[in-house]
Amino acid sequence: MAQADGPLTEYCEQMGRAARLAARKLALASGAKRDRFLHLAAQGLSASSNAIFKANEADLARAADFGLTAAQVDRLRLTPERIESMIDGLAQVAALPDPLGRTLAGRIRPNGLDIRKVSVPLGVILFIYESRPNVTVDAAALAVKSGNAIILRGGKEAVGTNQALYRVLRDAVEQADLPCDAVQFVDRSDRGVVSILLRMGEFIDLVIPRGGTGLIRTVADQATMPILKHYQGNCHIYVDRAADLEMAKEIVLNAKCQRPGVCNAAETLLIHAEVAETFLPDLARSLREKGVELRGCERTRNLLTNVRPATEEDFATEFLDLILAIRIVDDLDSAIEHIERYGSHHTDAIVTGDLSVARRFVESVDSAAVMVNASTRFHDGYEFGLGAEIGISTDRFHARGPCGLEELTTYKYVVYGTGQVRT
Amino acid sequence: MAQADGPLTEYCEQMGRAARLAARKLALASGAKRDRFLHLAAQGLSASSNAIFKANEADLARAADFGLTAAQVDRLRLTPERIESMIDGLAQVAALPDPLGRTLAGRIRPNGLDIRKVSVPLGVILFIYESRPNVTVDAAALAVKSGNAIILRGGKEAVGTNQALYRVLRDAVEQADLPCDAVQFVDRSDRGVVSILLRMGEFIDLVIPRGGTGLIRTVADQATMPILKHYQGNCHIYVDRAADLEMAKEIVLNAKCQRPGVCNAAETLLIHAEVAETFLPDLARSLREKGVELRGCERTRNLLTNVRPATEEDFATEFLDLILAIRIVDDLDSAIEHIERYGSHHTDAIVTGDLSVARRFVESVDSAAVMVNASTRFHDGYEFGLGAEIGISTDRFHARGPCGLEELTTYKYVVYGTGQVRT
Repeated sequence: MAQADGPLTEYCEQMGRAARLAARKLALASGAKRDRFLHLAAQGLSASSNAIFKANEADLARAADFGLTAAQVDRLRLTPERIESMIDGLAQVAALPDPLGRTLAGRIRPNGLDIRKVSVPLGVILFIYESRPNVTVDAAALAVKSGNAIILRGGKEAVGTNQALYRVLRDAVEQADLPCDAVQFVDRSDRGVVSILLRMGEFIDLVIPRGGTGLIRTVADQATMPILKHYQGNCHIYVDRAADLEMAKEIVLNAKCQRPGVCNAAETLLIHAEVAETFLPDLARSLREKGVELRGCERTRNLLTNVRPATEEDFATEFLDLILAIRIVDDLDSAIEHIERYGSHHTDAIVTGDLSVARRFVESVDSAAVMVNASTRFHDGYEFGLGAEIGISTDRFHARGPCGLEELTTYKYVVYGTGQVRT
Repeated sequence: MAQADGPLTEYCEQMGRAARLAARKLALASGAKRDRFLHLAAQGLSASSNAIFKANEADLARAADFGLTAAQVDRLRLTPERIESMIDGLAQVAALPDPLGRTLAGRIRPNGLDIRKVSVPLGVILFIYESRPNVTVDAAALAVKSGNAIILRGGKEAVGTNQALYRVLRDAVEQADLPCDAVQFVDRSDRGVVSILLRMGEFIDLVIPRGGTGLIRTVADQATMPILKHYQGNCHIYVDRAADLEMAKEIVLNAKCQRPGVCNAAETLLIHAEVAETFLPDLARSLREKGVELRGCERTRNLLTNVRPATEEDFATEFLDLILAIRIVDDLDSAIEHIERYGSHHTDAIVTGDLSVARRFVESVDSAAVMVNASTRFHDGYEFGLGAEIGISTDRFHARGPCGLEELTTYKYVVYGTGQVRT
């Protein structure tokens, strides 16, 4: 054990120490230099696309060994369009305002002290992710733009593709004259690497796991540094008795069907009893046309045929699939109570024309995003106008909801005086 | 084990569950109601002062059993002035603006979605602290004002006093018609309580340990929820060659001597070699008049007599006492390097009249507060104009520096639409 563990620890410590040094330098690099990295990386992706495709082909050829599903293989596959979309993403991040050096607050105190709260990088980020190779590029882009050094640890099924992308990123870092360890990639697949890195609070300021619940729980259990979690969402739509039912139908269909496998898709529909009879049969028809399986409470099953009973477990489940749980409730309070009990505080929506009901819902539902008369699918950094995001935080601490460039910064207080002392 | 542990777990879970419920209700309570609690608590302290003094006397009588030092006994002792100061503190917190419901950002998107980022409470805070009973009142005041339920766990040496204070707080919570478990107090002294509470991430959103380094490390090792740490500071003052030396002297004397036992007191003085000979002998005289022991680098010892050599350990130590480590450096970069190597990223100051030097220091020194021409002692919530604080964070995540009411909040996104769906 010690023998195998020894060199691995050294490998991780070297990486951590290098990241810490790079972070210090990167924090002082101008915004222009950090943007130059993004443009150079975009050029590099374009120039190296053949090598990247070749590496991706090799990963795809090994996909069966890892037992990947067809959907997972599709996510792993790079196409010219997907490379193009990474290049676009880099340009978009470059176009965003510099998140560093913003004055977040400031005042001159009665004693003349000039106090400013100024945004600075978080430091070193350990980013642990699964599948989709484009995340490698996105994460490095957001980290460097926000002045943070990043250590990338991707999934073993994409390691060749990620390494090819990493070579482009590393070249761009060097060409931009940034510290070369600003972006590092864990190229050892040893199981123990993550565990060791998660104990290195001295070198790593934040860990961001992005992937399935299993990955996130493992990381959360082991991490000794702060963690920004991106659990998936068990999102609800409550159709109030004062809802515009045509609007409600469009929103439910969109939230459930437009992209069912993502965290801001709706999983449970709650309906006020007074409108259930009018609303449900027509909605059910449309949902079934789109291939949605319905699971309902007893009252739902009295209104619809061929509906499986919704169990406690169904209400607590993120289906991430074309399945919708349905419950008819007597009032707003019951809807709120259901969301509190089963929800994941990610995204919950109400459809209503009643202002006081909307307000009570917004105040009482404690989710990262609460939507009134809009699809849950809008909970997203781009849609919120924040630019690119590294994920959607389901934590309450530091950042909630979409995590873009600003969420990857912290701040310091800068105080200018003229010799003030404290009495 | 299981037998002793069983009921204790139940006790903790009951407390956690009650706090979670209370937090939900408290988040919806008006600012007026939360302020009413503060005023009622102030009245209660005044009305119950005899009972509080009596409980404090009993704690003081037991102080020897706990082996408290004279300084610790002094901190434990309540006087009419200290009660008065708690009452003032409550009034001051009440007078601060409501930290909840602030719109932190907002925009209308091209598709008409009206998106606002609104401040909300963090949820349930577990606050673990040592000695000073006034902290019981301060912490509860800040928590309730910011809409958070709080579980208080004080030191065993102050348990009687804290319980007397807690009775006042609980009465005020009830009289203000707030959920009675908004403020809870751990009245069991079993060793295991804290360990159990630190595993209850389901009920507790944040733990704040306040006390010695040992306490904070223990809590950090065990906590499964986010933690906001308040380590002490190893603070530096760098006297540049372009410093106004009279100003530098006043700042060093203030930062070292005004209150040496606190985290924002200076521990190490760095001096540019060009001014050391002019500056040091006079400064040393004044410091020694105030009883400060000096420990210096070799060059310092060439200029001053009777100076003990400063070891590596001295430079890394938070003396919290009338001891000052001194090092003569060749330039700004050496000063920055020393601070990076030995500092704790709490508070560091430069004295200089050179604008470009000041700017480089401010940019390069990565501390929660960086001061130019002012005493490190100003790093404090009151002095920064933030109102009362629950402590000074040495973490980078969520909050850095003084943690007042705003730092005890998070946010949610509230989105109003008119039926928008995502395409």
